[in-house]
Amino acid sequence: MARADYPEQVSALIEELRQLPGVGPRSAERIALWMLQHPKANPGKLSAALETAVREVTACGTCGFFATLAGCPVCSDEKRDRTKLCVVEQATDVLPIERSGAFRGMYHCLGGTLSPLDNVTPDDLRIPSLMRRIGEVEGVEVILAVGADVEGEATANYLAEMLEGKECGVTRLAQGLPAGGDLEHADALTLSRAFEGRR
Amino acid sequence: MARADYPEQVSALIEELRQLPGVGPRSAERIALWMLQHPKANPGKLSAALETAVREVTACGTCGFFATLAGCPVCSDEKRDRTKLCVVEQATDVLPIERSGAFRGMYHCLGGTLSPLDNVTPDDLRIPSLMRRIGEVEGVEVILAVGADVEGEATANYLAEMLEGKECGVTRLAQGLPAGGDLEHADALTLSRAFEGRR
Repeated sequence: MARADYPEQVSALIEELRQLPGVGPRSAERIALWMLQHPKANPGKLSAALETAVREVTACGTCGFFATLAGCPVCSDEKRDRTKLCVVEQATDVLPIERSGAFRGMYHCLGGTLSPLDNVTPDDLRIPSLMRRIGEVEGVEVILAVGADVEGEATANYLAEMLEGKECGVTRLAQGLPAGGDLEHADALTLSRAFEGRR
Repeated sequence: MARADYPEQVSALIEELRQLPGVGPRSAERIALWMLQHPKANPGKLSAALETAVREVTACGTCGFFATLAGCPVCSDEKRDRTKLCVVEQATDVLPIERSGAFRGMYHCLGGTLSPLDNVTPDDLRIPSLMRRIGEVEGVEVILAVGADVEGEATANYLAEMLEGKECGVTRLAQGLPAGGDLEHADALTLSRAFEGRR
């Protein structure tokens, strides 16, 4: 007699859910059964939302922020100050800065930080397009808003060196960001102070 | 100047993920961005697994356990002892019993427990079909394997009363199940003892 177990369709779903960040085997099982059995669950809506987001959301070809079929909300905003270019690690780092209201310029998302240990070299980041953008606007101020951790420092130093001698100002976010912390967890006031005190 | 935020497609995905059990706003955001950006993420595979499970997995019309297009793995198993019918609360309660190897009969999943406070009455559970199944097999032993909590006790007492005078034996899982605990968290040995000591 075979011991009854989950149908393979359920096991496959649990297996996929286990890949998600912060979801262990037990929560994957709980989420899968909830989606299949709970009256409030709407699995069709979830998979439709997932497919729509995957299909319609891309990285902006200019700045790397989230763009949709309607374009990039930052690059297409005519009211932004094009003489200020804020360089961040990830597209998600743009959101806390926008929510703080401390900055009204343009962004450039590198797509990561330099990390020789993880084989992330300048070629893996959006550095060539950053250089191109800087060359296009005379006297642009480049604000290096990368994290204050080791990789962030290394990336900022690398960029500062590359920009030396170019016709642009280079500043860095200064006070406010806690050492070793990343942008994503900083609050609005901390970010405002960091923008004010940039050097 | 509008503050840039997630595209609505991303916000919609985060909103859907927040509905899942054990997923808060912060983890929903983390999971959504991981699915859209992480190189290891395979959102197409996840939504396909979800749709397949929703489409192909149903509750068995006889016992309420998970059934697929191939039928119910328990009801279609000719080698099982049809003179023993184990009544559990949920389809998921079948799995720990199967894994313990302590039982080789048939199951009946009620779909819940009686709970007047939550408006769950006998009509909301698979009780009519249970009575029908009991009438079909002469001298069947009905094993009430519901949880040892208040709702489980109430459900077991209700069923025991209904079965009084019918031509069937009624037993209950006895020692081993900790008071107030539910079946899902019981280990194999505990479940074996509970089956052996049924009264």
